[in-house]
Amino acid sequence: MTRVHIPIHRRWGDLDALGHVNNTSMLKLLEEARLRAFWRSADPQDQAPTAVFDASVLEGGGAVATLIARQEIEYLAPVPYEHKPLDVQIWLGRIGGASAEVCYEVYSPFGSDPQVCYARASAVVVLVDTATGRPTRLSDEVRETWAPYVEEPISFARR
Amino acid sequence: MTRVHIPIHRRWGDLDALGHVNNTSMLKLLEEARLRAFWRSADPQDQAPTAVFDASVLEGGGAVATLIARQEIEYLAPVPYEHKPLDVQIWLGRIGGASAEVCYEVYSPFGSDPQVCYARASAVVVLVDTATGRPTRLSDEVRETWAPYVEEPISFARR
Amino acid sequence: MTRVHIPIHRRWGDLDALGHVNNTSMLKLLEEARLRAFWRSADPQDQAPTAVFDASVLEGGGAVATLIARQEIEYLAPVPYEHKPLDVQIWLGRIGGASAEVCYEVYSPFGSDPQVCYARASAVVVLVDTATGRPTRLSDEVRETWAPYVEEPISFARR
Amino acid sequence: MTRVHIPIHRRWGDLDALGHVNNTSMLKLLEEARLRAFWRSADPQDQAPTAVFDASVLEGGGAVATLIARQEIEYLAPVPYEHKPLDVQIWLGRIGGASAEVCYEVYSPFGSDPQVCYARASAVVVLVDTATGRPTRLSDEVRETWAPYVEEPISFARR
Repeated sequence: MTRVHIPIHRRWGDLDALGHVNNTSMLKLLEEARLRAFWRSADPQDQAPTAVFDASVLEGGGAVATLIARQEIEYLAPVPYEHKPLDVQIWLGRIGGASAEVCYEVYSPFGSDPQVCYARASAVVVLVDTATGRPTRLSDEVRETWAPYVEEPISFARR
Repeated sequence: MTRVHIPIHRRWGDLDALGHVNNTSMLKLLEEARLRAFWRSADPQDQAPTAVFDASVLEGGGAVATLIARQEIEYLAPVPYEHKPLDVQIWLGRIGGASAEVCYEVYSPFGSDPQVCYARASAVVVLVDTATGRPTRLSDEVRETWAPYVEEPISFARR
Repeated sequence: MTRVHIPIHRRWGDLDALGHVNNTSMLKLLEEARLRAFWRSADPQDQAPTAVFDASVLEGGGAVATLIARQEIEYLAPVPYEHKPLDVQIWLGRIGGASAEVCYEVYSPFGSDPQVCYARASAVVVLVDTATGRPTRLSDEVRETWAPYVEEPISFARR
Repeated sequence: MTRVHIPIHRRWGDLDALGHVNNTSMLKLLEEARLRAFWRSADPQDQAPTAVFDASVLEGGGAVATLIARQEIEYLAPVPYEHKPLDVQIWLGRIGGASAEVCYEVYSPFGSDPQVCYARASAVVVLVDTATGRPTRLSDEVRETWAPYVEEPISFARR
């Protein structure tokens, strides 16, 4: 299995009044992992092998943007606050014409033994032309870069 | 169809750098709608007919808590910032032993013509005993209160 | 005293693991109150008398934007979650060339007896030209609209 | 000058519709830096030299908690999104009986040349007994641990 491993730091502010990472904060952590996986960094040394999009869009100024069309998430265990980053594992369940299904598994920090899987999730991301607001085709270059990271999509247990 | 209508105010801070309500902020809005639908208010006049849980848990001090086991959401149109509250419509897709499937449709403000459906979502909520951390049965009183609000669950279009 | 009263709803998600509205969430509530006080609404009926800025900027598209240059806040009592909106009272402590000092007091809901003052805060807001990024002068029209709402600035007790 | 340097990652979700780290998100980043500076980690290797509080409080279960009594912040330059962590520098402006003034300067990532100072801030933190809700004295051990990190408090330019 070829997955991208993205370390993502929790914040104490992600906890809610029940003392665990809030269920919506989990999606915030996945958002950040997605950004780090697919957007090019100012620092090429600090960049995921799947990074294909130009970072200018990140501040609202790009020619293309990625919109989320759907999300699905299963929470398997409460996530505590801890300093070490979560190990968010990302792969692609499907690459479509103008969209892709991003799959995630959120694990306790790299090196914890055993690693606990806290959550499994998927998001359908659509590439959109910011001028027209319409879907725009993923380039062949993007497809080739992503090809090694295509795996079985998640089979959600409790659908 | 018997649904509970919960008006939920957006905040400008819910927008992201693309200028629309962020996809994770949408789940924050649903969280608030769920709270208002199912938790008793200090003010009985300002309380949904489906409110069944004691508010003490809301600040972390209750005997039972509700945990989210899974969530699914389809985004149908970008949500702009506006002062008027969204019309979040809630019903129950299923009532289980210790859990329930909460269904949502998020509409533009009550009275907008036509009302735009921005998103459709569902969440499986599990009632948990805070002392043991284990699921605990929904009481008959809860079931009776909720019975009129059971409807067909959402058929997600893009699964 | 002439103040603008802006009702602002808390969200359960504003609480942190200590079970009270988080100190940074308080500033999120003030941000929303400021937006509602100073930006024009799509619905003229639902608009504060101090609203002077065109709403297009709110989604990142305007010719002017308001930046925050400084903020100061004193927390007087923990803020619990409650359905009823807080009564955020706003006035102007000073109107400068391209900036203004916005003063806030955050009270328990209108009609609570006695109303508890939870926090006092001020923010220096600077009007900026989005093309050049430089401060731009508040118009005479803005000054006239705001004049009735100028009051003594807050004297912070614990500086 | 003896300061603690805490690396804090931004998230794309910290940006607002103007495309910069939101002014309230800056305080969220400071909150996380404060946590990492003063709370003990599960991993002693990953712990600031100023860490003195037991982490159990972080999830709402401790005997003492720290409350924020006041905050002040000056924003010097807009903060863009970038993968590398900000260099948040922390010191103590004053140690009182049951409280301390935490001072912060937020810089662009360690190693950037020159490092840009984005913001300067201070927070008064009060140690509170969670059973009684009343201030409780900082121990001699805490005072000794913190003594090397006491420096001049920030002189805010625009007060």
